[in-house]
Amino acid sequence: MKIKVGILGATGSVGQRFVEILSNHPFFEIAELGASDRNFGKKYGEATNWLQQSTLDPKIANLILKKCEPDFESRVVFSALDSSVAGEIEEEFAKKGYYVISNAKNHRFDKFVPLVVPEININHFELVKKQPYGGGFIITNPNCSTIGLVLSLKPIIDKFGIESVNVVTMQAVSGAGYPGVASLDIIDNVIPFISGEEEKIETEPKKIFGKATEDGVKLLEIKISAQCNRAPVIDGHLECVQVKLKEKADAKDLIEAWNNFKALPQELNLPMAPKNPTLYIYGEKYPQPKLHRSYDKGMSVTIGRLRKCSLFDYKFVILSHNTIRGAAGGTTLIAEALKELNYLK
Amino acid sequence: MKIKVGILGATGSVGQRFVEILSNHPFFEIAELGASDRNFGKKYGEATNWLQQSTLDPKIANLILKKCEPDFESRVVFSALDSSVAGEIEEEFAKKGYYVISNAKNHRFDKFVPLVVPEININHFELVKKQPYGGGFIITNPNCSTIGLVLSLKPIIDKFGIESVNVVTMQAVSGAGYPGVASLDIIDNVIPFISGEEEKIETEPKKIFGKATEDGVKLLEIKISAQCNRAPVIDGHLECVQVKLKEKADAKDLIEAWNNFKALPQELNLPMAPKNPTLYIYGEKYPQPKLHRSYDKGMSVTIGRLRKCSLFDYKFVILSHNTIRGAAGGTTLIAEALKELNYLK
Amino acid sequence: MKIKVGILGATGSVGQRFVEILSNHPFFEIAELGASDRNFGKKYGEATNWLQQSTLDPKIANLILKKCEPDFESRVVFSALDSSVAGEIEEEFAKKGYYVISNAKNHRFDKFVPLVVPEININHFELVKKQPYGGGFIITNPNCSTIGLVLSLKPIIDKFGIESVNVVTMQAVSGAGYPGVASLDIIDNVIPFISGEEEKIETEPKKIFGKATEDGVKLLEIKISAQCNRAPVIDGHLECVQVKLKEKADAKDLIEAWNNFKALPQELNLPMAPKNPTLYIYGEKYPQPKLHRSYDKGMSVTIGRLRKCSLFDYKFVILSHNTIRGAAGGTTLIAEALKELNYLK
Amino acid sequence: MKIKVGILGATGSVGQRFVEILSNHPFFEIAELGASDRNFGKKYGEATNWLQQSTLDPKIANLILKKCEPDFESRVVFSALDSSVAGEIEEEFAKKGYYVISNAKNHRFDKFVPLVVPEININHFELVKKQPYGGGFIITNPNCSTIGLVLSLKPIIDKFGIESVNVVTMQAVSGAGYPGVASLDIIDNVIPFISGEEEKIETEPKKIFGKATEDGVKLLEIKISAQCNRAPVIDGHLECVQVKLKEKADAKDLIEAWNNFKALPQELNLPMAPKNPTLYIYGEKYPQPKLHRSYDKGMSVTIGRLRKCSLFDYKFVILSHNTIRGAAGGTTLIAEALKELNYLK
Repeated sequence: MKIKVGILGATGSVGQRFVEILSNHPFFEIAELGASDRNFGKKYGEATNWLQQSTLDPKIANLILKKCEPDFESRVVFSALDSSVAGEIEEEFAKKGYYVISNAKNHRFDKFVPLVVPEININHFELVKKQPYGGGFIITNPNCSTIGLVLSLKPIIDKFGIESVNVVTMQAVSGAGYPGVASLDIIDNVIPFISGEEEKIETEPKKIFGKATEDGVKLLEIKISAQCNRAPVIDGHLECVQVKLKEKADAKDLIEAWNNFKALPQELNLPMAPKNPTLYIYGEKYPQPKLHRSYDKGMSVTIGRLRKCSLFDYKFVILSHNTIRGAAGGTTLIAEALKELNYLK
Repeated sequence: MKIKVGILGATGSVGQRFVEILSNHPFFEIAELGASDRNFGKKYGEATNWLQQSTLDPKIANLILKKCEPDFESRVVFSALDSSVAGEIEEEFAKKGYYVISNAKNHRFDKFVPLVVPEININHFELVKKQPYGGGFIITNPNCSTIGLVLSLKPIIDKFGIESVNVVTMQAVSGAGYPGVASLDIIDNVIPFISGEEEKIETEPKKIFGKATEDGVKLLEIKISAQCNRAPVIDGHLECVQVKLKEKADAKDLIEAWNNFKALPQELNLPMAPKNPTLYIYGEKYPQPKLHRSYDKGMSVTIGRLRKCSLFDYKFVILSHNTIRGAAGGTTLIAEALKELNYLK
Repeated sequence: MKIKVGILGATGSVGQRFVEILSNHPFFEIAELGASDRNFGKKYGEATNWLQQSTLDPKIANLILKKCEPDFESRVVFSALDSSVAGEIEEEFAKKGYYVISNAKNHRFDKFVPLVVPEININHFELVKKQPYGGGFIITNPNCSTIGLVLSLKPIIDKFGIESVNVVTMQAVSGAGYPGVASLDIIDNVIPFISGEEEKIETEPKKIFGKATEDGVKLLEIKISAQCNRAPVIDGHLECVQVKLKEKADAKDLIEAWNNFKALPQELNLPMAPKNPTLYIYGEKYPQPKLHRSYDKGMSVTIGRLRKCSLFDYKFVILSHNTIRGAAGGTTLIAEALKELNYLK
Repeated sequence: MKIKVGILGATGSVGQRFVEILSNHPFFEIAELGASDRNFGKKYGEATNWLQQSTLDPKIANLILKKCEPDFESRVVFSALDSSVAGEIEEEFAKKGYYVISNAKNHRFDKFVPLVVPEININHFELVKKQPYGGGFIITNPNCSTIGLVLSLKPIIDKFGIESVNVVTMQAVSGAGYPGVASLDIIDNVIPFISGEEEKIETEPKKIFGKATEDGVKLLEIKISAQCNRAPVIDGHLECVQVKLKEKADAKDLIEAWNNFKALPQELNLPMAPKNPTLYIYGEKYPQPKLHRSYDKGMSVTIGRLRKCSLFDYKFVILSHNTIRGAAGGTTLIAEALKELNYLK
């Protein structure tokens, strides 16, 4: 018996990725799709401008869109809502007892809302018990460019510690949703600005790597500086990363740390869990968005070009699929872990 | 009376920019074009795959291509040669008494070969007197991604000093020449590697900012770390820069330093000299390659997004036109300065 | 003394081209800019997302945006309004005595509204006398993809007559305005549909080539079939054209017809008139949007690849700059002709 | 027991598609890879610049590249050779008794060499018995842009007959191989020329639709005119097609013909055979390369926008994956049919 789930904001670009991933999922079954009032009552297949290369499942295409109001039959609800409305709607659902697993930024820093990357801080789940929503709760997935970064840092932090992180991103247009970035703005161009993005990358890792306590999450002390750019790439965020370590490490130690890294999702053998959450690939020109973004269902963070840095200790390049690992896939992985750990009863 | 000049490597993408700039220049007149043996004897207009948006001057189109051998009538020779052949050919010309002004990397670190950005170190010109070529000499233009960087650093170094520089570039495909980057490699992609580029950015500034002495250039001590990426952009290198200053400065001090910066090329009113070698532009999304690369004949380095940095002191974004300011335009500006300072007699 | 003009819809992508062309025009001077109510009262430089590579004139940047209501001081008004509002607003202006020269589609087929390409049917201007607006009038510029086509057909129709025309277009994203085409839709893609475009190309030429009579324009009988595609190109519409002639002609006759074609705008030496309205360029790969769209101020239609066709008589490729020749430039040329022919008093 | 096969020209872009398709194939097993002398002796994984999004099978990556000489152990050999060398090499292999199934153009019009699209003319296979190679033979796959076209025409020809066909293509850069089209040539551009392409589309269908006789193939009489363009698309050829029918047909008749079309590969249930060789998809903006090229393993030709045409009878848009259906996939389908029909013993 699969668990019935609903998707809020199902017509957008992240919503479509949720539909794609959950259309044929061993744990979950899409029962309801919520959209803006404008699309209420339409068939999903008619209301959505399907942008994925996969074919939309006709059964899903025929689902009638509901309003995003807390009268869903499914108790488990994925949110791909725009941040302009997500805050309130998600709260309404939680108050009515729904389990909201959200990709939106609104509640990420709420005191008892876990901000989770399942390979890093599944233990933050326990915070939900202190949420003021009765039986319901909200759990959040971090920002797309944060997820790749923290996954690449996790094995290093565990073994050697990190003092400071510098990151410059080159992010795909799908990260801005649909219609998102205008073609006139990005063909033959790079835009050195993404609203709010640098702040997210500089703050979210502190909570993700923090310690869950009675009073919420005690943030990790780590200095991070980020610069974010939009590039003419469909999917896949590439990030140039520099780190200053607490303890000395050789390049081969880092590569070993990445390639041997496994965590609870791998042990539980969760459906969306990649074999390698972080994978170092050799080849001086790798990783590249077009070639590596879909590696292991789009859930592996690929890493390359590790070399010494005269200003930090090391520099390297990471790549993660922003709408899969960084959004719908990562959020689904949270739900899978919740299910296996008996949070979805 | 204009000075007759030759162009070596005239059919390539930088060679074409030389042709474009010198076709209607107040000081110089294109008299001879040199190309590979394969194209020897053909008309320029037939041998070149003209890639510029401007129309090729029919007079130039009809010039018959010569071999790149030191039997040119013009004593002043611009080199846009590929580095695989530039080293030897340029030396042959210099030995025969030619003034070689080169965009190739080969001789940039020769002891008495100036590596010049005219707004920074015109005084290095004097080194040529020690070159072992009799009356001829070689002067070099730096790498395209170096030029934008050092120009943006110059006004800051002058006023506040710089301890260290971190830079991540997003570089245009025209920087790789023609045919250069394959479309299969770069459409919907970013490539986090450009062969030899990071080494150039990390070393060339030390010579450019160095001091000309009897024994060549005493390098400036400054720590630089670079990470270079290729993006699907035709022209214009965008760079995310971070600096640690020697003395404290407010953001407005830096902006003032950039916007007030003038040097000898501006005083001499040289034809290719931009009014502002460095120009800060407001607007949180600026500068952008498509919008600002051609500013002031493509010779201004535009700068934006200045903000505090938790790891360095400041971070900002710079943009420069790689085949104009970073190649043919910068090299022409060197020639203009040489002429006005009586080096081309 | 320049004629003061206003621009309606000045912030959009065609509006910006009007600003660019009219900022430094020998006949006209921008006195007023109209925009949507949302932008009313703002400075133009702040309200517009300037997309052009040229620098916005600071004098224009400081103009305060007016509402698009008929209280302009300038009697001559250019319209770059969106068709959702253009119909009504343009009529209001005309009724109040303004001379409206419009790029919008709304009034193109009004009985006494000329639809003009100045090299083809300036004589349609006389129709305005029958317009029901008192002293004011509306004159329209055709659709961007129509203009290139009819210009390329005009010299052939004049000499040999044309029975039928088949055209397949590959159109630039700037033709859809701003934000227009989403980058997610067009990177690594071609879209074989542009709403309403095929109908425009199939009908507008019949009026442009028609005969002005007492009862409006008697349409030319000519069969046209069009298929329209959107390609990832910033500016420049490329069109594959096939024609069946009424009289036999050699390829060289057609080329001669194009290259010798001149009309009243050339004779009057109007500022925006290209030397050659139609120019055949040799080279089997030409014309190309990136290389030839800006030829002669972006006002020449370049033509190439003429060859026999087994189904029609000839096939060839044409290129025209869609926001210059096909929009703001073409409309300005109409205004220049109106001025020289004393319609703007 | 799988049949061992070799691939000639395995490192190129079509060669890589062969490797991808044959790496895990129920009938065939890659035993040998041939490449140019330059790469002879290297491991495949090191010699090839792997451009596919799928991961290269490590077993294949470790194969040592052989010269393209007829000393292969596998009797079945796929050729992805460049046409500059394919003619001679393929003949050498055939003479030594190899079964050569080629994607190259060289032997397509040899008298007894079948030019096959398996859904159309499998019966041409019998011609191989007359080839002058002893036991070996050569069978060819048509040009990539031809295959989509003829498949879309086949169901119409069968039911209503076709008098003439007009086609304008917008072709992906992968069709030009690797490195193929330079990024400087195609970013922000469309190139209205592909060498030799129009001739192929205008002639190959006549042989494919022809009748196999004692004297080779009697060509079908059908008038075809083609115009070919290169667009900035990675994979997927889009074609605007117009047809004049022999018998009247309604739009719904054509759609039915396409959607019901099945042939021998479908009956034999061949591994690469798509469920629908031709599939009409509704939606006024479809098909699109990015969205539909990979439909049914990249083997379906998707069709859309059927509408009446004033110059022909109907116009419509087709899309096919040029390196799968149009190259390695189509060629593999030929091999599968050969195997099932006992030609590979």
